[in-house]
Amino acid sequence: MAFFDRRNLDFILYELLGVETLCGHPRHAGQDRAMFDGVLDTAVRIATEHFLPHAAQVDATEPEYDGTRVHILPQVKAALDAYREAGFMAAAFDADVGGLQLPWTIAQACGAVFAAANIGTYGYPLLTVAAANLLRAFGSAEQQAAFLGPMLEGRYFGTMCLSEPQAGSSLADIRTRAQPAAEGHYLVRGSKMWISGGEHDLAENIVHMVLARIPGAPAGVKGISLFLVPKYLPGVNGAPGVRNDVALAGLNHKMGYRATVNTLLNFGEQGRCIGYLVGEPQRGLEYMFQMMNEARIGVGLGATMCGYAGYLSALEYARGRPQGRLPENKDPTAPQVLIIEHADVRRLLLAQKAAVEGALALVLYCAHLVDRRRTAADAAERERLGLLLDILTPIAKSWPSEFCLEANKHAIQVLGGYGYTRDYPVERLYRDNRLNAIHEGTHGIQGIDLLGRKVTMRGGAALHLLLSEIEATLAEGRGHAALDEHVASLAGACARVREVTAALSLLPGEGRLGLMLANATVYLDMLGHVVIAWTWLRQALVAERALAAAGEQHDFYIGKQRACRYFFRYELPRVQPWLDLLARFDDTCLTMSVAAF
Amino acid sequence: MAFFDRRNLDFILYELLGVETLCGHPRHAGQDRAMFDGVLDTAVRIATEHFLPHAAQVDATEPEYDGTRVHILPQVKAALDAYREAGFMAAAFDADVGGLQLPWTIAQACGAVFAAANIGTYGYPLLTVAAANLLRAFGSAEQQAAFLGPMLEGRYFGTMCLSEPQAGSSLADIRTRAQPAAEGHYLVRGSKMWISGGEHDLAENIVHMVLARIPGAPAGVKGISLFLVPKYLPGVNGAPGVRNDVALAGLNHKMGYRATVNTLLNFGEQGRCIGYLVGEPQRGLEYMFQMMNEARIGVGLGATMCGYAGYLSALEYARGRPQGRLPENKDPTAPQVLIIEHADVRRLLLAQKAAVEGALALVLYCAHLVDRRRTAADAAERERLGLLLDILTPIAKSWPSEFCLEANKHAIQVLGGYGYTRDYPVERLYRDNRLNAIHEGTHGIQGIDLLGRKVTMRGGAALHLLLSEIEATLAEGRGHAALDEHVASLAGACARVREVTAALSLLPGEGRLGLMLANATVYLDMLGHVVIAWTWLRQALVAERALAAAGEQHDFYIGKQRACRYFFRYELPRVQPWLDLLARFDDTCLTMSVAAF
Repeated sequence: MAFFDRRNLDFILYELLGVETLCGHPRHAGQDRAMFDGVLDTAVRIATEHFLPHAAQVDATEPEYDGTRVHILPQVKAALDAYREAGFMAAAFDADVGGLQLPWTIAQACGAVFAAANIGTYGYPLLTVAAANLLRAFGSAEQQAAFLGPMLEGRYFGTMCLSEPQAGSSLADIRTRAQPAAEGHYLVRGSKMWISGGEHDLAENIVHMVLARIPGAPAGVKGISLFLVPKYLPGVNGAPGVRNDVALAGLNHKMGYRATVNTLLNFGEQGRCIGYLVGEPQRGLEYMFQMMNEARIGVGLGATMCGYAGYLSALEYARGRPQGRLPENKDPTAPQVLIIEHADVRRLLLAQKAAVEGALALVLYCAHLVDRRRTAADAAERERLGLLLDILTPIAKSWPSEFCLEANKHAIQVLGGYGYTRDYPVERLYRDNRLNAIHEGTHGIQGIDLLGRKVTMRGGAALHLLLSEIEATLAEGRGHAALDEHVASLAGACARVREVTAALSLLPGEGRLGLMLANATVYLDMLGHVVIAWTWLRQALVAERALAAAGEQHDFYIGKQRACRYFFRYELPRVQPWLDLLARFDDTCLTMSVAAF
Repeated sequence: MAFFDRRNLDFILYELLGVETLCGHPRHAGQDRAMFDGVLDTAVRIATEHFLPHAAQVDATEPEYDGTRVHILPQVKAALDAYREAGFMAAAFDADVGGLQLPWTIAQACGAVFAAANIGTYGYPLLTVAAANLLRAFGSAEQQAAFLGPMLEGRYFGTMCLSEPQAGSSLADIRTRAQPAAEGHYLVRGSKMWISGGEHDLAENIVHMVLARIPGAPAGVKGISLFLVPKYLPGVNGAPGVRNDVALAGLNHKMGYRATVNTLLNFGEQGRCIGYLVGEPQRGLEYMFQMMNEARIGVGLGATMCGYAGYLSALEYARGRPQGRLPENKDPTAPQVLIIEHADVRRLLLAQKAAVEGALALVLYCAHLVDRRRTAADAAERERLGLLLDILTPIAKSWPSEFCLEANKHAIQVLGGYGYTRDYPVERLYRDNRLNAIHEGTHGIQGIDLLGRKVTMRGGAALHLLLSEIEATLAEGRGHAALDEHVASLAGACARVREVTAALSLLPGEGRLGLMLANATVYLDMLGHVVIAWTWLRQALVAERALAAAGEQHDFYIGKQRACRYFFRYELPRVQPWLDLLARFDDTCLTMSVAAF
């Protein structure tokens, strides 16, 4: 079953991004494309052999809690064992902590393969890497010695414990408390909700990264500290010792993404939950946010690949299913055509192709920014790349969550009634993907992050930089007659974005911050469409240049140009009404009275 | 739990449509609003007591086939027994066949209540009424005597057997055969796929309405005849007799809509499947299509109510869940606000309100057209109403299937992580609703029906009539300053629709039918937005007039005006890019090569 398109991944990595140029930097010395390809080959093999086969089964038999332990389909552990044994957990980590020090772009490309095969099973390493990143950046040498190594070996798994039953989007309101104990550790008490991977027997230990307040800390987000709370306390010789006071209070039963067990955890029910402060007190949320770019790009990648796997299923089906005749053919005895011949099925497929290939190009571009920043020649360049990454992150998280979900909806439509059954993966992928607009900051939160913070920070420097990058691509495109129409459309959109953003930016100074943010989500979708149009223009440019000598690859590049045209004609025009709405500071939603609903 | 809004249903029935004026016609003599209200009260009671309580449970425990019989959660039968006993099956049928002869609008309003409570369980009467309608219109007196009465009493259920495993959208290619037998009946042989309600013990008998070919019939849709194939043949005294040769070959396991068992049926495996020809040979599809308006409006109603129930759940949640503070409030010790105070949550709620209340107004307007046509004073008026109904039917079916599904997506978002769990109904409603764009003619098929048939037929008479109706509303709106902006927007859109449609209509004559239909789905969505804007303008006009004397109803009417404004500012502007695309006869999808995907 097609779940993944290696040709296009290679196109993005090597033809669009030129990832192998990273090998010129000392950090990646000795690495080359052949090495990257080998790693990708291994990812494809393990994903195909171990992740894909149980994706439907684990959806049908979700994790269960019998009051004593959590039961998870055994194939999940087998897949994760294969993943661990191949060394993927440590792929992008530094050599000095046992990592392979591969570019993060390559690690994410591998993640794309696993997410496409089975996003729920891939959830465990995704979270473990996020927790390990935190520990690597802010944990003490002692904490790293005890926990980081086993995590990178995949023997310990990690979780991120932020939300509570009464505090999801509003972390300022978390109630979990951490009381200093005489021994130097803290006693943690509180409940954490929506904890993915919170309890299972898939690993020797679980390392919870927990946000909590130390008594006396200021109210709000500035009073939050970060704690490492292991399921098992360190025992003799570093092996897991006695069980810590972390109790599973229940499982959440989800619409999809079911291989990843999701839990409500009670910390300190018996008053003996030991936690270790990570870094300095009251900097917990700041630490989290420093790791947030990577985590949010990871969510965007997952959303992209749910959509991508759906697209490939729909494409395979459309290429094999005969049904009906073309409109001009009124002869009922003529043979039926394959449904891919029907214009509306092609529309559904092009819509998916434009969404998922556009999103993948964006997400891997962001991953490449992480690598480029890490290997930048100087501080100015590092700052520039960091700014770009900051403004693109909410888009890379949100656009795929919204529009690759739409792709999943289209995939079901291509299969018709069959797509609505559990005999094909498309309905599951649609259900899996629906989570991505919710976790790691909802769609609405991303909009506020983008317009309320990223766009306005430093006098609008990040947006200015992004638009300059887009305009550099426009300049490149101007030489190509085939792209003229698109260049003009995108140039017009960029000019309007500048103008409307400038007008919006004045509102906070007039005491109208709420009005500025009233349509932040519309701004998010709008700028997302502009950015995806940009990734398409860049792909079309590469295709344009490659076409001259393309040979048997001709169709591939034609497909790129056509998907670009689709996006520019069917999708980019949506930004005009969005910009109109933003330009008028529309307050329809802001001022709607509660009683009038 | 809120699943249904009686106040708004009354608004649409009485303030917007003025349904009670039908009582002036002999067909509805002796009926009045009090009677309608009583019927609706009963529907609400039965839906609340018998349909709603098991909606989640039947989703979790879908119908199962043990090789001998189909097991369905017992509450489904209990609910259908209550429905039958209250006489709902025959609500809109003529008194002379035992019906209550209520307006179809009132019957549909009751259907709205049942669909909102539990669309899967409501599927059985929905199908039974559709089959009974066919039988009533085209069945012989003998067939009606044997089957129609028990169906209207709810003792026999019905099915519609059109699709086959190899023929879904393309009915021209069905293979089921009906061979005349000496006794006057036919021997039916073939497989029928996606048959809802195809096998169960919920009723004494199942009446399958089956499309099949008589040997020697012409190829294509013109060679299809309609047969009545009962599960049990008529026995002594009309009671169900011996079992007919209809075998359950398997169940389809769906993403949602699970209370309605969906089957693959084999007819005539043992060569003794008896079917009775309905009406004349080779007119089967014609008969089906004469009943199609009602069936498709029924699908649109179901889609609307899935979205509506989701909206009310989200609204209830948003009114009770505290989270975060408004952007201007930087004090973390200030109490949290209810999430309905957040502009983006209000946006999500207004988007749902605008979609579901707009769609319900359209669907019930269409139902009212059916009643008005049936009670029209003369043939000219009957024809006029029939034309309006013809052009609105694909929109009434499709717009809710697409945009009330979007509402379900938003409902999940309002609840955040909770919305993604099975503890709340919103994720189930999203899954249930996804079927509606597929069955009874896919979204793409509706687009072709609209642009390729309804819009162009009789020199464009139906579209002309629809636009004239819209323009009559615009004329009414011109006196109201509060609506000026909306009147101008909709007038502009209508003018452009005329112009673009005229250009598209020339294409078939130039041998470019395929090009005209290449963006038929875009045309469908576009005209749908125009029509929903119209229903909103009409609702806003009623609200405008009512506000003067509204008293405690003030907020309700303000809500109508605000939802109207939302739709005109956030949704109607989407038609411009759609019209641009249509105006340029875009062939991006039509000419995409298969190899380039």
